[in-house]
Amino acid sequence: MEVGFLGLGIMGKAMAANLLRHGFRVTVWNRTIAKCQELVALGATVGDTPASVVSKCRYTIAMLSDPSAALSVVFDKDGVLEQIESGKGYVDMSTVDATTSAKISEAVKQKGGAFLEAPVSGSKKPAEDGQLVILAAGDKALYDGMVPAFDVLGKKSFFLGEIGNGAKMKLVVNMIMGSMMNSLSEGLCLADKSGLSPQTLLDVLDLGAIANPMFKMKGPTMLKGTYNPAFPLKHQQKDMRLALGLGDENAVSMPVSAAANEAFKKARSLGLGDLDFSAVYEVVKGAGGSASGQA
Amino acid sequence: MEVGFLGLGIMGKAMAANLLRHGFRVTVWNRTIAKCQELVALGATVGDTPASVVSKCRYTIAMLSDPSAALSVVFDKDGVLEQIESGKGYVDMSTVDATTSAKISEAVKQKGGAFLEAPVSGSKKPAEDGQLVILAAGDKALYDGMVPAFDVLGKKSFFLGEIGNGAKMKLVVNMIMGSMMNSLSEGLCLADKSGLSPQTLLDVLDLGAIANPMFKMKGPTMLKGTYNPAFPLKHQQKDMRLALGLGDENAVSMPVSAAANEAFKKARSLGLGDLDFSAVYEVVKGAGGSASGQA
Amino acid sequence: MEVGFLGLGIMGKAMAANLLRHGFRVTVWNRTIAKCQELVALGATVGDTPASVVSKCRYTIAMLSDPSAALSVVFDKDGVLEQIESGKGYVDMSTVDATTSAKISEAVKQKGGAFLEAPVSGSKKPAEDGQLVILAAGDKALYDGMVPAFDVLGKKSFFLGEIGNGAKMKLVVNMIMGSMMNSLSEGLCLADKSGLSPQTLLDVLDLGAIANPMFKMKGPTMLKGTYNPAFPLKHQQKDMRLALGLGDENAVSMPVSAAANEAFKKARSLGLGDLDFSAVYEVVKGAGGSASGQA
Amino acid sequence: MEVGFLGLGIMGKAMAANLLRHGFRVTVWNRTIAKCQELVALGATVGDTPASVVSKCRYTIAMLSDPSAALSVVFDKDGVLEQIESGKGYVDMSTVDATTSAKISEAVKQKGGAFLEAPVSGSKKPAEDGQLVILAAGDKALYDGMVPAFDVLGKKSFFLGEIGNGAKMKLVVNMIMGSMMNSLSEGLCLADKSGLSPQTLLDVLDLGAIANPMFKMKGPTMLKGTYNPAFPLKHQQKDMRLALGLGDENAVSMPVSAAANEAFKKARSLGLGDLDFSAVYEVVKGAGGSASGQA
Repeated sequence: MEVGFLGLGIMGKAMAANLLRHGFRVTVWNRTIAKCQELVALGATVGDTPASVVSKCRYTIAMLSDPSAALSVVFDKDGVLEQIESGKGYVDMSTVDATTSAKISEAVKQKGGAFLEAPVSGSKKPAEDGQLVILAAGDKALYDGMVPAFDVLGKKSFFLGEIGNGAKMKLVVNMIMGSMMNSLSEGLCLADKSGLSPQTLLDVLDLGAIANPMFKMKGPTMLKGTYNPAFPLKHQQKDMRLALGLGDENAVSMPVSAAANEAFKKARSLGLGDLDFSAVYEVVKGAGGSASGQA
Repeated sequence: MEVGFLGLGIMGKAMAANLLRHGFRVTVWNRTIAKCQELVALGATVGDTPASVVSKCRYTIAMLSDPSAALSVVFDKDGVLEQIESGKGYVDMSTVDATTSAKISEAVKQKGGAFLEAPVSGSKKPAEDGQLVILAAGDKALYDGMVPAFDVLGKKSFFLGEIGNGAKMKLVVNMIMGSMMNSLSEGLCLADKSGLSPQTLLDVLDLGAIANPMFKMKGPTMLKGTYNPAFPLKHQQKDMRLALGLGDENAVSMPVSAAANEAFKKARSLGLGDLDFSAVYEVVKGAGGSASGQA
Repeated sequence: MEVGFLGLGIMGKAMAANLLRHGFRVTVWNRTIAKCQELVALGATVGDTPASVVSKCRYTIAMLSDPSAALSVVFDKDGVLEQIESGKGYVDMSTVDATTSAKISEAVKQKGGAFLEAPVSGSKKPAEDGQLVILAAGDKALYDGMVPAFDVLGKKSFFLGEIGNGAKMKLVVNMIMGSMMNSLSEGLCLADKSGLSPQTLLDVLDLGAIANPMFKMKGPTMLKGTYNPAFPLKHQQKDMRLALGLGDENAVSMPVSAAANEAFKKARSLGLGDLDFSAVYEVVKGAGGSASGQA
Repeated sequence: MEVGFLGLGIMGKAMAANLLRHGFRVTVWNRTIAKCQELVALGATVGDTPASVVSKCRYTIAMLSDPSAALSVVFDKDGVLEQIESGKGYVDMSTVDATTSAKISEAVKQKGGAFLEAPVSGSKKPAEDGQLVILAAGDKALYDGMVPAFDVLGKKSFFLGEIGNGAKMKLVVNMIMGSMMNSLSEGLCLADKSGLSPQTLLDVLDLGAIANPMFKMKGPTMLKGTYNPAFPLKHQQKDMRLALGLGDENAVSMPVSAAANEAFKKARSLGLGDLDFSAVYEVVKGAGGSASGQA
């Protein structure tokens, strides 16, 4: 199977390499062409422009850093739109907002092409290991055609229906995650102030029914007060705001998430927005201004 | 090693059997003497009264159904207090409140005996498999002496310091669990009302950083609206109330747990207190009075 | 002093009449011209179009029903823009959103005119009695020129600075009001369930430090379960959402308002959005679906 | 009408003086006898002990500083119990907890006497002006007999039913008050951070439907950051805790009050417990440790 691949950042490079290792023929393009060399060594062909990649391949995947890059690759000169047409599919796996996704979808469809948004859950390591979780939405036939590639890139892919649903699903997951981070923070703080060892609480939690990778990974660094931003707090708060907004549209009352959101806002007001989202622990501890611990 | 064992309910029987299988000599006692037969078949000796068990054994474990049974076995005629003395240890693994535990501790110590509270996390299956988590507090020397038995009964035991800390640790864990159950409920409801499949949300959650046994086990039954009470909602709410009370004593502000507690209270007011604590999902859905689903 | 007056609905008619009674010369216009007659009887002159009113008067006040009417009167043919110019002032006292207000402001200023947004707090009765509270923002010189008219129309006027601040001030006030309505509802419910008379609670409240007109007016109808929409719940919830959004922009954590907002959302989900905002009492009571009482 | 009066602190002295001024014959007693002189000048008789006051008077009122004083005056040697009997009434107007009140009630009734708890709302000034609000509960016949005295002491008295209801009513009122204080704090903070003048917000509030004496009195001192403790924050938080506990008993879900309670707890954790309860504003501002402003 032949696929185009646009964007060779940390994620894109790992994903394209995986495809090559599993026997896919891959034509790559990157804004900085030098980044393509590593993949050429693995057997990739290089395309001059997004348009030329699309021209050559039936399926083209994009993995770009942000909405403006995602839009640029499609709408700019030599972009995807110039060659997309009936019989070709474009799959954007970048994490972008609903508006950006809808805009690209409409433009691709107007040219007769098929479009799939397919944001992923998981970062560098899962990308390298082909262990991403893929949240696809849009053209079902295109999804079906992409399954062999998704099987290589992720441990699991989901088809979620209409465009926008991929982003929504990420919001819901992140909302639950944000509330859980607050629950953990409150528990650690309660343990500490009640004469129990927070570290022992982590050990106990890890043996029980609510043991989960996030508690295991973040708990120890929270106790140390180090918050290197794997997922910046301001982004977590933005996702909670958007999830609560989605709830507002649909009249879903979510008091626990709302309380968690206010804690993240408090963290932002204390200048912790650029730290990891686990820094909300500082708010629960009530340490205030001085407590913006960094490794 | 020889141990006494008082109380052969579902948990106690499984625990005593485990000890026998691992070569411990065990003298058992149960209010209804007939229940001892099964363990005699596995090699146990039977004691006539709690006092006679304590008289015979250096270490005696109790696993009773509630605080009144725990008190009765110690303070009543032919009870533990009549024979406990210097050089003997009494280990209460029942789940009781702090007052009950403190009362037993004081009485045992006044007689010269050593006391350990050691409530467990885990129910029937983990008890049978020796996979309990043991939260011990009280006499450290007694704890050290009990380690061989704890190694058989649980996958892990913790010594948490002074009497009361075992119960406190359980409260903190259950508080986090209660908040998480609310977070999951809100997420499922948001997914549903936003046009996403709640079942798919469960599938996505199970592949990510917040995957945990509780979501995996409770999620599907929540979607079916069946709430067979593994852990009754009214007990979960009581634990959240007590945890928030502990936070109040120590001036720990916990807005997310407080919001979760109010949702559990709402569930109680709707008559859902005897269902499983996952029935708080009905409150989030806002189904109100009619929605007290039972399998 | 001479002023133009556009819009003779319930509010506008009362306000224009007040100006006439206090010796102002007033040129009125209304989409349905018949409505002008009553004011002519009080001494008003009639203008043919918004443009002709502006042409004749140095100051023109508008009091229109909604944003679309407010825009139409300015931007349509024969609208305000055709005659507004340097030396003339336009004062929109309608309740409109920030975007609408900004749009009108920009257009008027581009023509050289001065603009003031001046939404009011208070409805029919205060309008008739000249007891409105006027929240003005925009051109300070125009505000100063309008003081004689504002003194007639309201018991108090405020100049709040730049365009948008009038709307923001209303949001903050309504947010506090929404939280207070929840507090009252929770108190009434707690009294009732604790064996106290909710009516007596209202009587006690009315004698103390937190006595206020809203509790006095809404309390008795809430106890009767009648919620004729003086201020529809869905509008209250929208204002809380916008206020919380304003807080989000500025990183202000407001957990009490957030909890109140979730209660209003729950009310919406139960179909109470078109009732008075005091119907949130039904949510606190937990009556659910059946309890959408109407007079 | 003749009444006994026990306790001549700030409140008691003002109240007894009021009774004398209105023609009541009053026999006073105070632990420090010197304090009686001022009232003797107004016409009071002095009793040697609580018992001798009760012996002389059909009705005896007590106004004591705390539960231990309230108990001591009744149960100690020469206390109320020695002379209370059928045909005599004892009215405790002190603010005490439910347990204390129940204990006194039972003891008085066992001696054949009648008992009324009658805590008041209002402090020094209302006491002097006879403008207290009296929340009476217990013996209805005794209440009826006391009406002439209550008419002098308060602007309004309520009979609330069984013993304990007076205290409960105060809790409900204080809970609403605590939530409102949080609402005001959030509004002031939102105004400030959104570019509006918090002082202007106070002015606007004071003209509208939610204007109330508390906002008017506390608002300006909050903006100055002075929190002289008229009602200490730790007492407000205790009342909210008790009110939420009452709600828990009766399964009343109160998420807004719960959120307000967590803010007061946060204030306590920052060391603001001895300041006025309006110091919760510091928590909303997020000023943390440094911001414990005092006049």
